[in-house]
Amino acid sequence: MEPGKRLSVAVAGASGYAGGEVLRVLLNHPHVEIGALTGASNAGSRLGELQPHLLPLADRVLQPTTPEVLAGHDVVFLGLPHGTSGALAAQLGDDVLVVDLGADHRLTDPAVWERFYGGEHAGTWPYGLPELPLAGGGRQRQNLVGARRIAVPGCYPTAVSLALAPGFAAGLLRPTDVVVVAASGTSGAGKALKPHLLGSEVMGSMSPYGVGGGHRHTPEIEQNLTLAGGRDVTVSFTPTLAPMSRGILATCTAALAEGVAAADVRTAWQEAYADEAFVHLLPPGQWPTTAQVHGANSCVLQLAVDEHTGRVVVVAAIDNLVKGTAGGAVQSVNTALGLPEAAGLTSVGVAP
Amino acid sequence: MEPGKRLSVAVAGASGYAGGEVLRVLLNHPHVEIGALTGASNAGSRLGELQPHLLPLADRVLQPTTPEVLAGHDVVFLGLPHGTSGALAAQLGDDVLVVDLGADHRLTDPAVWERFYGGEHAGTWPYGLPELPLAGGGRQRQNLVGARRIAVPGCYPTAVSLALAPGFAAGLLRPTDVVVVAASGTSGAGKALKPHLLGSEVMGSMSPYGVGGGHRHTPEIEQNLTLAGGRDVTVSFTPTLAPMSRGILATCTAALAEGVAAADVRTAWQEAYADEAFVHLLPPGQWPTTAQVHGANSCVLQLAVDEHTGRVVVVAAIDNLVKGTAGGAVQSVNTALGLPEAAGLTSVGVAP
Amino acid sequence: MEPGKRLSVAVAGASGYAGGEVLRVLLNHPHVEIGALTGASNAGSRLGELQPHLLPLADRVLQPTTPEVLAGHDVVFLGLPHGTSGALAAQLGDDVLVVDLGADHRLTDPAVWERFYGGEHAGTWPYGLPELPLAGGGRQRQNLVGARRIAVPGCYPTAVSLALAPGFAAGLLRPTDVVVVAASGTSGAGKALKPHLLGSEVMGSMSPYGVGGGHRHTPEIEQNLTLAGGRDVTVSFTPTLAPMSRGILATCTAALAEGVAAADVRTAWQEAYADEAFVHLLPPGQWPTTAQVHGANSCVLQLAVDEHTGRVVVVAAIDNLVKGTAGGAVQSVNTALGLPEAAGLTSVGVAP
Amino acid sequence: MEPGKRLSVAVAGASGYAGGEVLRVLLNHPHVEIGALTGASNAGSRLGELQPHLLPLADRVLQPTTPEVLAGHDVVFLGLPHGTSGALAAQLGDDVLVVDLGADHRLTDPAVWERFYGGEHAGTWPYGLPELPLAGGGRQRQNLVGARRIAVPGCYPTAVSLALAPGFAAGLLRPTDVVVVAASGTSGAGKALKPHLLGSEVMGSMSPYGVGGGHRHTPEIEQNLTLAGGRDVTVSFTPTLAPMSRGILATCTAALAEGVAAADVRTAWQEAYADEAFVHLLPPGQWPTTAQVHGANSCVLQLAVDEHTGRVVVVAAIDNLVKGTAGGAVQSVNTALGLPEAAGLTSVGVAP
Repeated sequence: MEPGKRLSVAVAGASGYAGGEVLRVLLNHPHVEIGALTGASNAGSRLGELQPHLLPLADRVLQPTTPEVLAGHDVVFLGLPHGTSGALAAQLGDDVLVVDLGADHRLTDPAVWERFYGGEHAGTWPYGLPELPLAGGGRQRQNLVGARRIAVPGCYPTAVSLALAPGFAAGLLRPTDVVVVAASGTSGAGKALKPHLLGSEVMGSMSPYGVGGGHRHTPEIEQNLTLAGGRDVTVSFTPTLAPMSRGILATCTAALAEGVAAADVRTAWQEAYADEAFVHLLPPGQWPTTAQVHGANSCVLQLAVDEHTGRVVVVAAIDNLVKGTAGGAVQSVNTALGLPEAAGLTSVGVAP
Repeated sequence: MEPGKRLSVAVAGASGYAGGEVLRVLLNHPHVEIGALTGASNAGSRLGELQPHLLPLADRVLQPTTPEVLAGHDVVFLGLPHGTSGALAAQLGDDVLVVDLGADHRLTDPAVWERFYGGEHAGTWPYGLPELPLAGGGRQRQNLVGARRIAVPGCYPTAVSLALAPGFAAGLLRPTDVVVVAASGTSGAGKALKPHLLGSEVMGSMSPYGVGGGHRHTPEIEQNLTLAGGRDVTVSFTPTLAPMSRGILATCTAALAEGVAAADVRTAWQEAYADEAFVHLLPPGQWPTTAQVHGANSCVLQLAVDEHTGRVVVVAAIDNLVKGTAGGAVQSVNTALGLPEAAGLTSVGVAP
Repeated sequence: MEPGKRLSVAVAGASGYAGGEVLRVLLNHPHVEIGALTGASNAGSRLGELQPHLLPLADRVLQPTTPEVLAGHDVVFLGLPHGTSGALAAQLGDDVLVVDLGADHRLTDPAVWERFYGGEHAGTWPYGLPELPLAGGGRQRQNLVGARRIAVPGCYPTAVSLALAPGFAAGLLRPTDVVVVAASGTSGAGKALKPHLLGSEVMGSMSPYGVGGGHRHTPEIEQNLTLAGGRDVTVSFTPTLAPMSRGILATCTAALAEGVAAADVRTAWQEAYADEAFVHLLPPGQWPTTAQVHGANSCVLQLAVDEHTGRVVVVAAIDNLVKGTAGGAVQSVNTALGLPEAAGLTSVGVAP
Repeated sequence: MEPGKRLSVAVAGASGYAGGEVLRVLLNHPHVEIGALTGASNAGSRLGELQPHLLPLADRVLQPTTPEVLAGHDVVFLGLPHGTSGALAAQLGDDVLVVDLGADHRLTDPAVWERFYGGEHAGTWPYGLPELPLAGGGRQRQNLVGARRIAVPGCYPTAVSLALAPGFAAGLLRPTDVVVVAASGTSGAGKALKPHLLGSEVMGSMSPYGVGGGHRHTPEIEQNLTLAGGRDVTVSFTPTLAPMSRGILATCTAALAEGVAAADVRTAWQEAYADEAFVHLLPPGQWPTTAQVHGANSCVLQLAVDEHTGRVVVVAAIDNLVKGTAGGAVQSVNTALGLPEAAGLTSVGVAP
């Protein structure tokens, strides 16, 4: 990018939680100019009514989500219902960096896509999780440099993959006995008007959903861990809804491979993330809280070996809307375009 | 009990959350008269200052916790720090029904007690989980009839044991691959003045604790499941703190034993709890929420078989202070004294 | 009522928060048998799907809301959109006790009704706030004995009227300088699927609504205080939405009438509620919390005189769904039918 | 300041909520280098244990709060118990910009100080509320330019003064009939270990405190409004504690002066804040929420005239820790030192 030039960025789906968070992050980005904002049923509305926290953009009016409106920007973020981003991207041309916040282009296996999402698979795009260690060395970051299409990871897969990948990359874990239970804030479910998402129902309550392997993030987690370890991984994944707006706490446990010494386990995680700006292994004895990453692009980790059961337990905390969506997306955009990877991003949470 | 006679009941530790909840339940109990209330540092205070929701008892004044004050009641509940209830009970005599809300008399193996709690084991009392199925048939209920000592289960063990015991009792589960992650409201940590329990820290945040097998409820869970299945069970247990005052949501997963057909699994739970008033297996498709049991003595369950990983996932919701503490205690007292098991208890939650 | 006979009770609108809470209270009522349950769009659904906390009624199926379905019960509760209960009641006959949980029959002045609600006024029914002191002596209770129609008060008017009526009844307050700001839990807004009621929006947030005198409960509050004081009262009322499911905290302040001594103020409230089972003036120094009345039919009060500004500040806490709706309704039904006023009701909150 | 030079900043009381928030804001400040961090009982601890969200400072160790440790910095923030900052500041010299986050130097009248805080008044410092309009024209901003001592306003006075000052400055309001009820998140009470601040007590509950004119922020509010209007103002102020970590929602109502037309009221606020970056009067019909300013330095306002009672109701939302404490402090420091007033600050909240 030329010095002083600002990227022109459009956001489709600016009225949703993902789109709104992209805008919040971009308002702090030194190299970005916010261009067109679009919506579906909300086209014509002031952004101030829909995203009242984005005060500097309050008087912007949403336009309809069409290729014409989105054309002419350097970067286009798509916060759309799944099944729709592929066709739209095709009309935007190959020079534009298109970033899909949805699920359409994350999975590599069309059969898996069809089983979990239905309909035809729209093809796979470079996966926006820069820190993911790859079997055989390297990081997913290398696959993002120069990319003009990015598939932003799901929020749960971000947390769980960062939590467990070092163990698989180092060959420490059995690939067939992985159990993950994760709690998410309600913004992970979007702004949909469903009775169980009402404040009266959510406050003071925890509940599971997608139990028994049915959650769509399950194959995405398995794909990432397989990529990290080089062997097929299967995961029992149970998500739960927690009474908070933001945050994911993922409790990830896996059986240690035969012959692995407890003392060697911690080292694998230390080495995996020693040079990463946004993934933090806490000092021994300190455990992650979702509050500490509220509004931040950080993933905070801690682990313990349970010798009684022969398992390692890794707990990860992220903000589902930042590292789990908009922050991770901007981080990948920075990488794709050769900007500093941390531009516009903070590792500091808003707490308490 | 003679018709019309009311039990005289004392509560030691009436200023804490467990003691307060016992009083809340007893205020609804048709056969009970509330006698002495005691505290340690709070002796001399009006209960109205300490438990402002117990309006009918607001003018009661806490007495010191001594055998003299507690003597002369039919039933004495002890909500005391662990390590202290055994000696006190010994001074109350064998005719009094002494109910320990703490951990002193739950575990049967002194070595395990010492490892997890330190100090000398005070002996084992009948365990107050009436619905627990026992290997070889029968229920724990039978061991409570006529008892004059009751060890009230821990809150997590109540939820987890009710969730998994039917599977072990029916021989459906492998005893060495059990993983439990549970979320608890903050009242489970008591009224202790610790920074991480402040509202500012808790609201909007989830965090784990006791990770890696160190939580004291781990051996209690294993003891119960071993009792149900007749074979040694080991459990990977991770508790987490959730931003709500009450409630436990326990996500319990275990590998199916070889040759178990998915279709047979549900039946075991249906049969186990068909006749139980306080344990409810929900209709297929409906999942427990902690809100639905807020203030109730119910344990609500649902399960799914994940054929992809060969595991069953059972989710249980209880109110940690009711079914997990005070309600379970009163239920056991009713059983011990030959009262209707549900006297003073409700299965109906306060929701939303 | 004949000894041993149980009242047959129907609830129209059983899927909403008001209807569900009536059922929760009635499940504890010793003289009641729950009959027909009806809904509009939910007719045909199992109650267990809609009100999962009402476990004993889980298998009940909602019927359509028609006079035929509701006929033949002793008592019918109507939790319906405003404007619809009058016509339905007319078809149920004069022997049936019809209890309107909505607003249709609360206001006495048709012109005020039309200004705040629109449409034609359906007539005034006996107002279900038994403890309200009346100018010239007596209580509203006397107007409920033998009634076959009851208009259940709004939740805010319940709290505010109980807070301020003693001062007006005793002639201590200036009728033209009353300012009330109240915070309500989200269940007060019902189960309506509106974006601002989503958990993600509500948690961690407070916001006002109906500011500037527009809230429909304003004239109802003024009507009650005018009734208590015998002179026209005007009230500045601002409601706010708080991040909790239940509870109203009403901060009510009024200028003291000329010549009123601070020392005399407290006495008026003490005397007004000395004999009331559900309205509690706390001891000096203790202030109400909504937590202490969660799930209870209590209204808890405290007051202070601010000599610097010449005002009294009275703070009231109620559970909007209990004393503010379903509990107050059942209390009035008990009065109308000659049952003990507290039957089925508790003054004990579920806390913490 | 020379170009490129960074200010060296120390923070005393870095373990508290105010000190932690100053650090969070400063980590985003382009002209600042964070120097010594001190604590009292926490001296010697890693900051990572006390403020886990401040990841870039996790390995900093707190030093004792002494003049020696604090000396040599350009700016020193004091987050100390009241009564202690004056003596410490005296030892730091007149060249250092000392910013008192506490109450010691806010009030101008020593008699009022003594009545509300006790002890001897430590003198008055320039008051850090730049936007406050002053009677006779001008803003408080002008009194901060070049200052080397700043008294940071209390959180409630920030919200209430910004809400009502335009009306007093324009002569629209009667100075003797002002009623304010405000709800605050629990972080406003600090990290003190008090039972009523436990999460179990706070969640799901609202409660008042300091009722009847006793809250220490009352005279500070009156001082500010008197300064704005040029006439003595008295205020009835009632604070309440809300179940959220951050945020203040202040509902402020005042009687309109005789002859004021409702149509003129809005104009006064529009003109007062038309050029302010951090005070926003929302478009008609949109009301403030505390969520929209979470983590932001914004104060968001809306107002309505209630012609029925002759009052204006102004509602303000701020983040008590940002605009109400640390953000306001940094804004004032920027002004004092001739930096851009918004340096390091954002008007964009973290929502939902």
